[in-house]
Amino acid sequence: MKISFLSLLILPCILSYSQEAKWDSTFRPNSYSLKVEQFRGYPDSPGDIIFLGNSITAGTDWMELLGNTSVRNRGISGDITYGVLERLDEVTEGNPAKIFILIGINDIARNIPDSLILDNYKKIIKRIRHASPGTAVYFHNLLPVNNEFTPARNHFNKDEHVLFINEELAKICREEKVTLIDLYNPFKNAENKLDKKYTYDGLHLTHAGYLLWASLLKKYLN
Amino acid sequence: MKISFLSLLILPCILSYSQEAKWDSTFRPNSYSLKVEQFRGYPDSPGDIIFLGNSITAGTDWMELLGNTSVRNRGISGDITYGVLERLDEVTEGNPAKIFILIGINDIARNIPDSLILDNYKKIIKRIRHASPGTAVYFHNLLPVNNEFTPARNHFNKDEHVLFINEELAKICREEKVTLIDLYNPFKNAENKLDKKYTYDGLHLTHAGYLLWASLLKKYLN
Repeated sequence: MKISFLSLLILPCILSYSQEAKWDSTFRPNSYSLKVEQFRGYPDSPGDIIFLGNSITAGTDWMELLGNTSVRNRGISGDITYGVLERLDEVTEGNPAKIFILIGINDIARNIPDSLILDNYKKIIKRIRHASPGTAVYFHNLLPVNNEFTPARNHFNKDEHVLFINEELAKICREEKVTLIDLYNPFKNAENKLDKKYTYDGLHLTHAGYLLWASLLKKYLN
Repeated sequence: MKISFLSLLILPCILSYSQEAKWDSTFRPNSYSLKVEQFRGYPDSPGDIIFLGNSITAGTDWMELLGNTSVRNRGISGDITYGVLERLDEVTEGNPAKIFILIGINDIARNIPDSLILDNYKKIIKRIRHASPGTAVYFHNLLPVNNEFTPARNHFNKDEHVLFINEELAKICREEKVTLIDLYNPFKNAENKLDKKYTYDGLHLTHAGYLLWASLLKKYLN
């Protein structure tokens, strides 16, 4: 009886430990420090429009794509919500006009719990509002992925997380009065997977994908 | 005697074949077709200033680094002289004001013979002149590398090729009246290796490296 009671006390700790051991919020991709150093080195200009995110944001030249010379690319391949929080001061110190954010799919791939991803979204919004009150914040919801591509990725077969994050992000954006840009629905096919027209690996976008994204952004850039 | 004579005839063929088998001019990095598709998709503007090359060119935001909104990045990670030739029409069709070229270190890493690299330099110049006679062409000589970094790279310990290519490129530029921008000497240390101040892996540049490069470009951009 005594041992059983002790087990009941210890069990949640063990479970919690084993769960936490699966993910690592200190993860930084190789290029992280190099890229952050570059970003800090570039001059800020009034009216900057920042695209903040991971490889999906890094993978196009936003200035050329949108034909807008105020646009700056602050995407880092492999980045997660913790990485964005850590470098957010570089973005806000220039008091940019607008920040467009897409982040979280690598958190899901790294098994970071949904609740922490959502907490980080709130922190990102709060920190931008505090450090640069004049900046308009735009959050994208997560793109679908498509597991029909090889090689398989840690991002695949976690669709229920993508859906849950997107539902909760929509609530956060309503509460915080942040504009939410829906990428999920325009990019999905009939099976709720990232449409093959727009991806070459089930996760990243082709130029056709970026053109669709650009068309969805038009009304927020004029 | 007969066999020996035959051997003498066949030997060069065997040697030549084994040498050719070491390199492959059809090599294309994974991102090649994706990037070329993007480049073709971006609009051209009069007065464009093109930075054309491999990952060393791809690794910074030239527009932000130079504070010049006419600048376009046409670097593709892993690219070689053959890759540049194949996509050169995308660059020249917009009749850009200037093209700055740095290419060849991946050719050396892939054991492409120096004579072919030099032939390709001549072809690049000729094709630009033919397709876009009003464009000013600037060639950079090859940066040194530094073999004191791990992991070892195919680019290391081929310094005599870098030196030979740079010598011959200087002759080509004199003959073709192309401006040669010397990167080799400003970036080398006392042992003729890429100075550790400017690199994180013996091949690619840190932000300090790009700042030095930008300072060397100033007089060609005003």
